[in-house]
Amino acid sequence: MFDLKGSCILAQSGGPTSVINASAAGVFLEAFKQNNITNVYASNHGIKGILDEVIFDISKEDLKEIELLKTTPSSMIGSVRYKLKSYEEDKTDYIKILEVFKKYNIRYFFYNGGNDSMDTINKISKFLQAENYECMCIGIPKTIDNDLFGTDHCPGYGSAAKYIATTIMELYLDSTVYDLESLVIVEVMGRNAGWLTAASELARYKGYGPDLIYFPEIPFNLNDFLNNVKKIIKTKKSGLIVVSEGLKDITGKYIHELYRDIQTDSFGNAQLGGCAQVLSNIVKKELGIKTRFIELSLLQRCAQHLASKTDIDEAYNSGIMAVKYACSGITDKMVVLKRDNSKEYKIIYDLLPLEYCANTEKKLPLEWINKDQTSLSIEFINYLLPLIQGDMKAPLEDGLPRFAKLKKVLVKK
Amino acid sequence: MFDLKGSCILAQSGGPTSVINASAAGVFLEAFKQNNITNVYASNHGIKGILDEVIFDISKEDLKEIELLKTTPSSMIGSVRYKLKSYEEDKTDYIKILEVFKKYNIRYFFYNGGNDSMDTINKISKFLQAENYECMCIGIPKTIDNDLFGTDHCPGYGSAAKYIATTIMELYLDSTVYDLESLVIVEVMGRNAGWLTAASELARYKGYGPDLIYFPEIPFNLNDFLNNVKKIIKTKKSGLIVVSEGLKDITGKYIHELYRDIQTDSFGNAQLGGCAQVLSNIVKKELGIKTRFIELSLLQRCAQHLASKTDIDEAYNSGIMAVKYACSGITDKMVVLKRDNSKEYKIIYDLLPLEYCANTEKKLPLEWINKDQTSLSIEFINYLLPLIQGDMKAPLEDGLPRFAKLKKVLVKK
Repeated sequence: MFDLKGSCILAQSGGPTSVINASAAGVFLEAFKQNNITNVYASNHGIKGILDEVIFDISKEDLKEIELLKTTPSSMIGSVRYKLKSYEEDKTDYIKILEVFKKYNIRYFFYNGGNDSMDTINKISKFLQAENYECMCIGIPKTIDNDLFGTDHCPGYGSAAKYIATTIMELYLDSTVYDLESLVIVEVMGRNAGWLTAASELARYKGYGPDLIYFPEIPFNLNDFLNNVKKIIKTKKSGLIVVSEGLKDITGKYIHELYRDIQTDSFGNAQLGGCAQVLSNIVKKELGIKTRFIELSLLQRCAQHLASKTDIDEAYNSGIMAVKYACSGITDKMVVLKRDNSKEYKIIYDLLPLEYCANTEKKLPLEWINKDQTSLSIEFINYLLPLIQGDMKAPLEDGLPRFAKLKKVLVKK
Repeated sequence: MFDLKGSCILAQSGGPTSVINASAAGVFLEAFKQNNITNVYASNHGIKGILDEVIFDISKEDLKEIELLKTTPSSMIGSVRYKLKSYEEDKTDYIKILEVFKKYNIRYFFYNGGNDSMDTINKISKFLQAENYECMCIGIPKTIDNDLFGTDHCPGYGSAAKYIATTIMELYLDSTVYDLESLVIVEVMGRNAGWLTAASELARYKGYGPDLIYFPEIPFNLNDFLNNVKKIIKTKKSGLIVVSEGLKDITGKYIHELYRDIQTDSFGNAQLGGCAQVLSNIVKKELGIKTRFIELSLLQRCAQHLASKTDIDEAYNSGIMAVKYACSGITDKMVVLKRDNSKEYKIIYDLLPLEYCANTEKKLPLEWINKDQTSLSIEFINYLLPLIQGDMKAPLEDGLPRFAKLKKVLVKK
């Protein structure tokens, strides 16, 4: 039996999602149960909380509030975008981390994030091993972008996909109410990988589809785009197009940079419109069609009110499994979701070495993109549909969500 | 007993809402029950469908689909923005309308819309009276803007308010995840009336508030704004501000026009950023703070997935009451919602003459705006809270909404 006794600490890192706190709930509630774990801590703003010694004692929180974390969006213990330098480059942070881990007897370290975050925990894990400091380091996957390597999908993606598909269905209906030539262009997140953009295919699958979808995996050609728009407006008067924020031309240059001169307002400040805004202006000018651009922006990563129960459950289970694996002596791994190939959709919580997951980006498989390059095959629908099933929004109080409230009691230094 | 026998026709007009089809369901289902009504018709794209004789026979629709209209957003029979000229100016449309009404024996006319739409039905009603053509004309209120005169509130507003309040709560959480100086500016619809902008006060009431709210009723001062932003960033690092799309300075000039030079992209096309984008650029430039702007855009008028059940019920009942009143011989009126002053929230469906409601705009009462001019009093909260109660989203199919599908069978000319 593995019986390393010590404190555990969880940190959240990178962009938040609707379900990142469900993973936190899983970690906390499972950690309370484990005999190996003496104290349950959380780090304020990712790795920064460890470096600055701003650490919360989770045992001081009400259990009811920890349960509510399952349906509370955004990073409730605070997130960070902090790139740890390599040990060779600068060892300051590493020395500090070891000092803090020793001081608080941290023997279980959970880092919940995406590619960059897995790079952070991977570096820390390797360093602690080299220092012979025994500490179980487990990564927990999280990103709406779904671009983490080695996992069938990422907790966070299902809910963002459900939000995007539902919203596009509603917008599609809205975009057809007038008997006018008009175009709505919706911009979806995902700078390099088209997973989120692709989620809009579900709206088309239900009959309320975007007329065209533009993926960052496919080089963007403005003439083809304008010709496609012309065809749609000619055929059905109004149209709705979904574009990735990360569209690039054949040379790899971003569309929103390529087709935008430096514009300055009366304060001499450059206007930074996104891809949808830039394309919307071009369509207006070139084709004389009434256009409107909509950026889903932060809404797609925090719309807990449209969270998928499947996604919440998987985020929660990933947290639980991270603790269980760590307490059985496993370290230096990330929890990955493996899809069981039997008839019913079923997920197995497996593990992969941290170094495999660090900094690698998983793009949308090109074989799922149809020949027209603006739609996706049924294989993608079959992949995505199970991930958006079930509703589980926050309980309501006065008709509005009741989110978790944490006391955030600091551990004494 | 009033026994005018004839067809009824419903038209939808102006910007759609999440619940406008609930009123349509109310009209159709009640009209089927009324002995006076011989045929139940709907006009394609508002008054245009009557002028062009594009009229749907609603008796050909499945009852199940009509029921689903209660939870289907946008104008399912098509909307229009069409300003009817005065009879004196141009009588062409009037003559055509009378011809069509006679041809189809239309004796019950329901027009579902806002101020402009009430102007349309008011003109038609007065014309038909002058022509001695007996036809009961009843307006049904609809607008997310809540700016219709004479009604406690408008069907459509409660759902939009619920969407805005919920979304701002989520965005507020999202905006605080990093330990960075940053500002999010959210733009809400309502060019002249601040009702929608005000709905974000509910988020603050729940503790996830916008730090500042800027209403179109209060002249905007850029220096005061920048000073307020500075204070917030100094006190709490990150901030979230809600602005109306219709902010104007003391001279009545729109902020997004005032502070924007004509910018042209590489196609020589003027960039038309909204108020939030313009203010976001100014904050970036003047205060050096990381900012992001978000326009809720069409989402706030079609997000059926966050519809208020109270709003759906009231929209539905407004449709039912319009038919009941008309079939009892009442004409030339709009259905208005009167709040009963007893303890429990209760609505009475009353009537007002169409001419009172046409073209008048009801603004946010200035006495509800606090002295700081960026927040609202508890009186507003008490006014709004009942309107957002209850959830009633479309039934799900594959985890996505199942909206009504209409056959739209044309009535033979």
